[in-house]
Amino acid sequence: MITEAHCIQLDQNDELAHLRQQFALPPQTIYLDGNSLGAQPHAALEQAQHIIRQEWGTDLIKSWNQAGWFNRPLSIGNELAPLIGAHPNEVAVTDSTSVNLFKGAAAALHMQRSQNATAQRRVIVTERSNFPTDIYILEGLKHFLNDGYELRLVDHPEHIHQAIDTDVALVVLTHVNYRTGYMLDMAAISAHAHQQGALILWDLCHSAGAVPIDLHAAQADLAIGCTYKYLNGGPGSPAFIWVPEKHQAQFTQPLTGWWAHQSPFEMQPSFQDSGDIRAALCGTQPIISLSLVSSGLAVFKQTSMAKIRTKSLALTDLFIQLIEERCADHPLHLETPREHAQRGSQVSIAHPHGYAVIQALIERGVIGDYREPHIMRFGFTPLYTSFQDVWQAVAILKDVLDNQKYDTNLEKNAVT
Amino acid sequence: MITEAHCIQLDQNDELAHLRQQFALPPQTIYLDGNSLGAQPHAALEQAQHIIRQEWGTDLIKSWNQAGWFNRPLSIGNELAPLIGAHPNEVAVTDSTSVNLFKGAAAALHMQRSQNATAQRRVIVTERSNFPTDIYILEGLKHFLNDGYELRLVDHPEHIHQAIDTDVALVVLTHVNYRTGYMLDMAAISAHAHQQGALILWDLCHSAGAVPIDLHAAQADLAIGCTYKYLNGGPGSPAFIWVPEKHQAQFTQPLTGWWAHQSPFEMQPSFQDSGDIRAALCGTQPIISLSLVSSGLAVFKQTSMAKIRTKSLALTDLFIQLIEERCADHPLHLETPREHAQRGSQVSIAHPHGYAVIQALIERGVIGDYREPHIMRFGFTPLYTSFQDVWQAVAILKDVLDNQKYDTNLEKNAVT
Repeated sequence: MITEAHCIQLDQNDELAHLRQQFALPPQTIYLDGNSLGAQPHAALEQAQHIIRQEWGTDLIKSWNQAGWFNRPLSIGNELAPLIGAHPNEVAVTDSTSVNLFKGAAAALHMQRSQNATAQRRVIVTERSNFPTDIYILEGLKHFLNDGYELRLVDHPEHIHQAIDTDVALVVLTHVNYRTGYMLDMAAISAHAHQQGALILWDLCHSAGAVPIDLHAAQADLAIGCTYKYLNGGPGSPAFIWVPEKHQAQFTQPLTGWWAHQSPFEMQPSFQDSGDIRAALCGTQPIISLSLVSSGLAVFKQTSMAKIRTKSLALTDLFIQLIEERCADHPLHLETPREHAQRGSQVSIAHPHGYAVIQALIERGVIGDYREPHIMRFGFTPLYTSFQDVWQAVAILKDVLDNQKYDTNLEKNAVT
Repeated sequence: MITEAHCIQLDQNDELAHLRQQFALPPQTIYLDGNSLGAQPHAALEQAQHIIRQEWGTDLIKSWNQAGWFNRPLSIGNELAPLIGAHPNEVAVTDSTSVNLFKGAAAALHMQRSQNATAQRRVIVTERSNFPTDIYILEGLKHFLNDGYELRLVDHPEHIHQAIDTDVALVVLTHVNYRTGYMLDMAAISAHAHQQGALILWDLCHSAGAVPIDLHAAQADLAIGCTYKYLNGGPGSPAFIWVPEKHQAQFTQPLTGWWAHQSPFEMQPSFQDSGDIRAALCGTQPIISLSLVSSGLAVFKQTSMAKIRTKSLALTDLFIQLIEERCADHPLHLETPREHAQRGSQVSIAHPHGYAVIQALIERGVIGDYREPHIMRFGFTPLYTSFQDVWQAVAILKDVLDNQKYDTNLEKNAVT
């Protein structure tokens, strides 16, 4: 049986433990929701004050050049690139995940039509359990193109391979499932998609900053993701889009705003594609929210994704083991794979009264969240989660379950 | 001849003069570029600190409900609505101007196809001198629809009426031209477009917060605009989109992200349109940059657009008159209409060495900007520009021109 003393010992041996000091975490709170909204780096507050006072308040319009505002989607993209195995000038931090998926999927279908003029590939493959916005955006694109495209929704991760055949133009998959934490084999699925002549776009919302990613090694075609979960960029901070150099010359997307123009300040009356990563941009970006992504990324520069992964697996293993040891009498069902290769950095557990139980935990300072149906989701962010946090969270969960301290009459509220 | 004493007198009689104290303006600077990036309201700094410390740092994920983050695009839209003659629940503050134009134009074309199943309207009218991103976005939309659409670019505002005939599906016009400051007659052009069976979308980037606007009185169909110019929302703060109630049931746009879904948190595997203003949303918004729009709008609540317009015209009249009295020997050409009904809140003046002259002014603390070809652009924002500012700006311009204090060898840099 694992003891609290053992968990404290794990913290003492944890070489990432000192990074927790760089985050503002509320007292009496065990925050296991960094997979939804990452904690606030102290540096973000100082950075925001500087941008507002100096760059906006004092330097005003000059900051577009002088402070590098205009280039910030690409300069922050370059800061993010090493975390996902991207090369310099392949990542733009801009717009939302949904908008970037629209751009990327539209560009991929355009590439397919250009490269295979005679082919009639009209199938887009994704998972039915993908985060809904991914499916919705593909539906919107399909209607908009009005050219015979259909969505093929896969019902289980093990059926993905067989769903990708020679009718498929594009595969859109989320690397780590938002609900279950199931991690797909990016390299194997990408290789299979290419064998079938399909392009593949990866959504990294639940894996960027959570697990090591090497997009080039996996031979992915395009990727998108958010910066406000494990990357700690702040609420709704702009998302990213990865366009590898091999595809940049062919990358053309419908949202051709002036930031994607070859020479935006010549104010020409016709669009000329930049031909580089800027082709993934559209319009003017929210500079304050965008800039704070840097404060989140700065913490990652002090360690490595390999070390983060080691601690992440240790945290999720510990959580699973403690629940099995201490809450065995309750109807809990582990939704997250036990195999390390199939696990992201979250653990999802179903309970018949999952919504009520998670509310009871939140009231007691253990912040997880709820996802339909019945799923309690706990995110483990190695930069600021301790092993003792895991012990305490399970102790509180055990108390809530053992003593039925949850209200099954609770109405569901919007929870993101 | 106007004297500086007269300008000081105008300031003493100015009932908006006290509002200037609410903005952080750098010393020794006359900021005539609020038409590009509005000044920083002091309240924006306090608001950002609160959001970062309390809403993000302490309350974390709870703030999506508790602090109203999820509803903020609509709650700030409701704050903005009175400035443009919109009703409650008709405005969303979200994404960029370019993205919103894409949504609005795509939705308008979709409405046309639905309402006129047999009609072959395939022309989109805009001005060749429109801000380029508007033209680029329409080009991108045209290519991706791949359905025979063509752009008809009008070369002079007086030719707009005749360009709108029964082949036209959609008219997209910017109310006040970014380069010349020319203001179009929104009601007359909208009425003509409707007579011809076209829909009309107005870009309010250079008029929201600058001139009185009544979208309902003008019977406009859709509108978009930015919040970082006259509205002082901060660098790149999210843009807005107006969908009047009469069009909400038919409004469908391709960027169908989860924020546009009827029930976003039910995580359904198929998109269901909200049928209200949320149909104009797409994905998660940059909450910090979005929220600060409120601090900008708060200043407008202390006065009225009628009072702002009166002062705006007095400022631009004074600027034009002083230039004509004091700089008459120089090759300056007024690009902005003299007629009040055709003038926004900026004055554009061409000079053969416009770029060099504007750089010399900026070095001397008079911040205007440059637009191709040869145009010096000066924005007058009644909330924080004084009549004495105008006097001093012209005095410095006169000195720069009289004594040729500008360097005609300067290379052009990106200037936004």
